[in-house]
Amino acid sequence: MFEYRVEATDGCARAGTLSTPHGPIPTPAFMPVGTLGVVKTLTTEEVDALGARMILANTYHLYLRPGHELVEELGGLHAFMRWRGPILTDSGGFQVFSLANIRRVYDDGVAFQSHIDGSTHTFTPESVMDIQRALGADVVMAFDECPPGGCDRSKAEAAGARTLEWLARCRDRFTELANRGAGPRQALFPVLQGNVFDDIRLDQARRARELDDWKGYGIGGLSVGEAKADMWRTLELLDSALPTDRPRYLMGVGYPDDLLEAIARGCDLFDCVAPTRNARHGTAWTSAEGQVNLKAARFRRDTGALDPSCDCYTCARYDRAYLRHMVVASEWLAMRLLSIHNLRFLVRLGEEARSRITEGAFEPWRSEWLERYRQERRAE
Amino acid sequence: MFEYRVEATDGCARAGTLSTPHGPIPTPAFMPVGTLGVVKTLTTEEVDALGARMILANTYHLYLRPGHELVEELGGLHAFMRWRGPILTDSGGFQVFSLANIRRVYDDGVAFQSHIDGSTHTFTPESVMDIQRALGADVVMAFDECPPGGCDRSKAEAAGARTLEWLARCRDRFTELANRGAGPRQALFPVLQGNVFDDIRLDQARRARELDDWKGYGIGGLSVGEAKADMWRTLELLDSALPTDRPRYLMGVGYPDDLLEAIARGCDLFDCVAPTRNARHGTAWTSAEGQVNLKAARFRRDTGALDPSCDCYTCARYDRAYLRHMVVASEWLAMRLLSIHNLRFLVRLGEEARSRITEGAFEPWRSEWLERYRQERRAE
Repeated sequence: MFEYRVEATDGCARAGTLSTPHGPIPTPAFMPVGTLGVVKTLTTEEVDALGARMILANTYHLYLRPGHELVEELGGLHAFMRWRGPILTDSGGFQVFSLANIRRVYDDGVAFQSHIDGSTHTFTPESVMDIQRALGADVVMAFDECPPGGCDRSKAEAAGARTLEWLARCRDRFTELANRGAGPRQALFPVLQGNVFDDIRLDQARRARELDDWKGYGIGGLSVGEAKADMWRTLELLDSALPTDRPRYLMGVGYPDDLLEAIARGCDLFDCVAPTRNARHGTAWTSAEGQVNLKAARFRRDTGALDPSCDCYTCARYDRAYLRHMVVASEWLAMRLLSIHNLRFLVRLGEEARSRITEGAFEPWRSEWLERYRQERRAE
Repeated sequence: MFEYRVEATDGCARAGTLSTPHGPIPTPAFMPVGTLGVVKTLTTEEVDALGARMILANTYHLYLRPGHELVEELGGLHAFMRWRGPILTDSGGFQVFSLANIRRVYDDGVAFQSHIDGSTHTFTPESVMDIQRALGADVVMAFDECPPGGCDRSKAEAAGARTLEWLARCRDRFTELANRGAGPRQALFPVLQGNVFDDIRLDQARRARELDDWKGYGIGGLSVGEAKADMWRTLELLDSALPTDRPRYLMGVGYPDDLLEAIARGCDLFDCVAPTRNARHGTAWTSAEGQVNLKAARFRRDTGALDPSCDCYTCARYDRAYLRHMVVASEWLAMRLLSIHNLRFLVRLGEEARSRITEGAFEPWRSEWLERYRQERRAE
């Protein structure tokens, strides 16, 4: 279980399959985000129909609402939300450091105030393992300190060091819980920090590997405002520092072009709220016109599909004129239909990348795709 | 076309079928409201799946956004919103008198300000016929003056008189447009006003019938705050004043118990925003517990279906604990799932009433149903 089989490579890009108790995940793969146990606006049948295999849910949010004990009592997150496929839960680190009011970060953990009602809570590496066990995801993430993007070297170093100390404690608690036998079969992935400092990044990778033979690796602290060149360099660095036979999950990425760039640099799994958040703002991705906002007057009489080359429910059934009308009138159905499209766009990008890698034709396809996508975006 | 065949009666209740260019409507029937050409949060496939045959759309809203000319240019409302079944559009009268800022009501029409941007517009009987022809609904409604609920007799009388004058003008324009040949086949229904004044109501019915042999009748000016007893008395009065071989559409009703009471008094068609609006507030109807709000703490661990006797998608697939979690967290999926349930609840109530009428067993079923529903509501 949790074996990762690399089936083909093309340059640094990999096509593989990660096995989980809830089924295999062919990679590269984009994971839709179901923050509160719901991929926003969509049923799990719709998520399944768009080809997504693994979804992500947020430990921080589910801990606050409805509470991990309740989810456990109701049979775990899979049963609670009616999702039969694999689930990954994040560690809550990113949310605690970005959403909540931090009261105190100390060696033992983080005391914070809920963004909902201001109530005070504490996350420790151990409690975060307990919560994720109660939720019952297939893959759980280690609790990490997430320094802000653009922080200085000493801050990045300190956060990295603390993340590694917490990782050892996560491992111990995770092992202890797993050894009790009952409950879900899970894999723990570390989160590698280090911002854009090459030596810290390499040190994080080396020392994390010394702590365990992990089933996969989370790459954190990227896509937080750094220059794209810094992100690509960091990924190239990690590509050679991480074992080739383990999946790499690039956290919080992404946008279509970032996804392709990261796949080219050896990343396998991705998540991002952009597809559903953009949808709620009326924004959609298209193969031939880049990113478009449906509010634009030019779509008023446009009876074409949102993206004629897309195979999603929205593009098969509705046209731009009607989508625009609904976006302008703030009809929630528009947000649903654009969510379906944007998610399918990224899921399909992963599927296409996978088949190009398998054919050994990834690089020319990627350049051409990016060229077209970026050119059209510039033209708009 | 637009024949109404009464197939069975039980007391004053009727089971019939109204034929339209987009298919037959078995009655009694609840029509989901698609204000802006969208039944809120739902695809037309979902609306179809819940058994709704005819939907309603709002002339006032579609005139303002996206504009009836645009809808016509894009092939009419059926094509625009991807609905193959029959559509009824209201006349905009109710919205002009309740939503917009009225600038002036005069014999020719109403000058009003848009509730969206304050822009000034005028509706006349003729323009409302033009707009509804452009939208292309199967059944269109005459433009009426809607006095507020609880208005005095002289106001009700004046509004009724004006409504009849406008009705004659609507008929003339409707006939003129229909005689041009091209365009959709439509039926025009008058809207009967008169509040709760019996003599005005009878006069409206009599004088409307003198104006034409209408294909059906709209009953307006009810469910606007009057006592229930007044509404039932008015419906009983109209039941004998209207031809039996024409469908009666009780506008803006309703809630489940009101629907049954009105069916018992000879009404055939209904519409109301309550199912979708209540859904957005977390409220649902159930056969055994009346109206419930999912926010209630008692649903926190409730793994039962929302309504165990319901056959909708929501009740088949989700439980109350998960629905409650989503309502509390304001997840839009909850609003979708509750909309599906509430709409199915009313559509099924119409279907059940129809089969009880056909069996000649409507009255005992209705009393028992209402007894249970009201008892449970009192108990909450």
